[in-house]
Amino acid sequence: MFQVVRNSPKPLGDQLVEEVSRLIESGRLPEGHRLPSVRQLARRAGVSAYTVTTAFQRLGAKGLIEARPGSGYFVARFRRQAARVELGPAPSLDPVLGFTRNLLEQERVVVPAGSGFLPAEWLADGIPSSALSRFGKSGTAFESASLQGDPVLRELLAERLRLANIPVAAQHLVITYGASHAFELIATTLLAAGDAVLVEDPGYFVLPAQLRNRGLRVIPVPRLADGLDLEALEAAAQLHKPRMLFTQTLIHNPTSTSASAARCHGILKIAERYGFLVTEDHVYTDLAHPHSISLAQIDELQRVIYVGSFTKVLGPGLRIGFAAVRDELVRPLLEGKLLGVLSGSALVEFVLREVLDGGKYKRHIERLRDRVAKARASAAQLLTTAGLTVEGAGAEGIFLWSRLPPHVDAERLSLDAQAQGILLAKGALFSPTGQFNDCLRFNVAYAADPALIQFLSSRTARQTI
Amino acid sequence: MFQVVRNSPKPLGDQLVEEVSRLIESGRLPEGHRLPSVRQLARRAGVSAYTVTTAFQRLGAKGLIEARPGSGYFVARFRRQAARVELGPAPSLDPVLGFTRNLLEQERVVVPAGSGFLPAEWLADGIPSSALSRFGKSGTAFESASLQGDPVLRELLAERLRLANIPVAAQHLVITYGASHAFELIATTLLAAGDAVLVEDPGYFVLPAQLRNRGLRVIPVPRLADGLDLEALEAAAQLHKPRMLFTQTLIHNPTSTSASAARCHGILKIAERYGFLVTEDHVYTDLAHPHSISLAQIDELQRVIYVGSFTKVLGPGLRIGFAAVRDELVRPLLEGKLLGVLSGSALVEFVLREVLDGGKYKRHIERLRDRVAKARASAAQLLTTAGLTVEGAGAEGIFLWSRLPPHVDAERLSLDAQAQGILLAKGALFSPTGQFNDCLRFNVAYAADPALIQFLSSRTARQTI
Repeated sequence: MFQVVRNSPKPLGDQLVEEVSRLIESGRLPEGHRLPSVRQLARRAGVSAYTVTTAFQRLGAKGLIEARPGSGYFVARFRRQAARVELGPAPSLDPVLGFTRNLLEQERVVVPAGSGFLPAEWLADGIPSSALSRFGKSGTAFESASLQGDPVLRELLAERLRLANIPVAAQHLVITYGASHAFELIATTLLAAGDAVLVEDPGYFVLPAQLRNRGLRVIPVPRLADGLDLEALEAAAQLHKPRMLFTQTLIHNPTSTSASAARCHGILKIAERYGFLVTEDHVYTDLAHPHSISLAQIDELQRVIYVGSFTKVLGPGLRIGFAAVRDELVRPLLEGKLLGVLSGSALVEFVLREVLDGGKYKRHIERLRDRVAKARASAAQLLTTAGLTVEGAGAEGIFLWSRLPPHVDAERLSLDAQAQGILLAKGALFSPTGQFNDCLRFNVAYAADPALIQFLSSRTARQTI
Repeated sequence: MFQVVRNSPKPLGDQLVEEVSRLIESGRLPEGHRLPSVRQLARRAGVSAYTVTTAFQRLGAKGLIEARPGSGYFVARFRRQAARVELGPAPSLDPVLGFTRNLLEQERVVVPAGSGFLPAEWLADGIPSSALSRFGKSGTAFESASLQGDPVLRELLAERLRLANIPVAAQHLVITYGASHAFELIATTLLAAGDAVLVEDPGYFVLPAQLRNRGLRVIPVPRLADGLDLEALEAAAQLHKPRMLFTQTLIHNPTSTSASAARCHGILKIAERYGFLVTEDHVYTDLAHPHSISLAQIDELQRVIYVGSFTKVLGPGLRIGFAAVRDELVRPLLEGKLLGVLSGSALVEFVLREVLDGGKYKRHIERLRDRVAKARASAAQLLTTAGLTVEGAGAEGIFLWSRLPPHVDAERLSLDAQAQGILLAKGALFSPTGQFNDCLRFNVAYAADPALIQFLSSRTARQTI
């Protein structure tokens, strides 16, 4: 049953791991099936017992088989449920890179309907000019930034988090160049190449590419309207023994929905049972209802790493965010920051400190939230009249996740849009399993653009020939 | 002669690699010595021929043995010369992290004599306040930064490089959060874990830790007063098959010396012969004589990656630098940047652009260079009267590399200094091989401090008891 090639340049152990994996994954070795003993298999395959034992250990680490002391090795249970959420071959980086570069370069884009950023004019009152003139006088640029981040800024951030019922002190915060930089530090210092990590499907599209780039095994878990699919989460946890889950409980990108309190509770119970950490991506927190629930509130930063950013409400030009972590995790993140970028920017930290301390931030946020809500309502209506189905109508935030009618090909639509200077964000971009081909993610600030609505209407109208 | 343990949990191949490495490194298997044939060794050690072949391939990859077609395997030549510059066990990160954090946190430091940064008041005219007020009006903060970096800024930088006879266009430049971020991008996108890289000994102390943190094999090469030791460079290249050399040709940290044109030419010839790339760290360029030589000038960015930064002359609070690379290397660096930090800071890029475009930068640099030269001369004199020997007296830049008299223990001195709020930078910190225990690196701006000079004098004076 197991075939190995003795004179192959591929070591016999590797061949065995691949062969058994293939048989299990194709279903030919069913769940609970008992494997031959190490001795039997070694003799049959003509390899040493050591080779077989090592191969079995590796298959165990992959979650494919399990040892039952005294009775041998068995194909792992829960395998098939989780196979539902298993990745195919790692998708090419090109769509992710291509889309992000389009977004960041904004070349030839007239209507950035798929953008993740609000328009500059919506954000313009966020950074008062006094913050900058004070900077000139402060001399801060000329001093090195603290490795962890400006202590006054961290105190201001900690106060804000405590108001949101997340119990942290300034020493638990590490300032980063935005949320992506925080994910990078987490991936490179708290995780090791080969570790399994769970991400949302659909979810923030750069994250899986970023994690894979650091050698992590990215396992997608379906994201429902009120949070992760808990059954699938548990199955994936059992099968893959993940070290970490990355989830966006609040104003999820791309669907703009938020996880319910019950779902948050369920996520934490599973994380505890299977012993993994959770990185909670809360970059949209200031665009949400002030009393929203978070994992970090419930868990009090025991198992949760809370990541925030000001890129969404003060502008992507600032590039500043933070990770809030429990005591023991501070030092590894600081070491990772030191060995990656050496330190943060005192200039950017100063500007954020002035903004948060200046007393106008609250009004900026409230105004922005109102503006987003109004744009959301009218854009949703226009997209509906243009023939799309807007999902999660009650959601908050800057995204409208919309479904195309079945006769419209999203790929074709998006290419034609690009030719007209309209940047669309295809649903499949947000899915590590390549699903959601019939969805588009719209930015509320651009989705009511007449050129966009006209373009969409012309494409969704059924043609009778 | 080769001993392996059959029932060890360590695979037989690993044992064989370790055993042979040990014998070669201890000199018991001399250069040019012929190893037993694969068949003989397999029989003698009781392992398969496959195991021996694989082990030999790994020893070959380590540069320890070489295959001569038709006659078998031999202990590699040039082994011993290079062994001179070979690392012992990887040193602990702690000294590097401890020193850097001391520097960056500047807690309890009264005299930062070992600092790598100039005092804030020396830099204060570098960023005119108009740069900041213009930023407030520009709205740049509210727009996302281009992934590669602001095109106008890149054009300004390219012009400056062309004036220094380095032929680049804006499209060859990738803006980074300082030089460290550029090294990080190079290490993670152009190199792979396990690759050998060459660094200078002594040299910039964070770099080896940063490279090791990415799984690279760091091989030190002695740095002489006029550049790298070319014989040792060639021996290390032959032995380790490095993928890259990191070198600081101009105002080397910690010695403040610069490589001669002849030495630069020699480095490039060796790089070409052995097929490795060179990252030229030029972060002190604006503190040097305007007509200094660089590898990038000679090589025209074929084999050289040129890294610059403005942290040293505009203040560490800014955190901005760049890598200049040939066309094919731009995309990998951009991908690495995207998947690491997502993008740069439009705010910081705007400030640098205003500074470079503002017409006052040249005068700022000239004034700073004068001030550094004067401080250098007087500090060198004071350190000499305090009993130290200042090396490289004709050198430029902000560092004074000084030797302690033989009876003074640098470790003890540095701990006692720290207790008095004086931060010293011990020579060993800059040496991946732990040499230069009798040296200290001083910052010219702080080295004339009376408290420091008095402290040093009291310690170097011979006590007669």
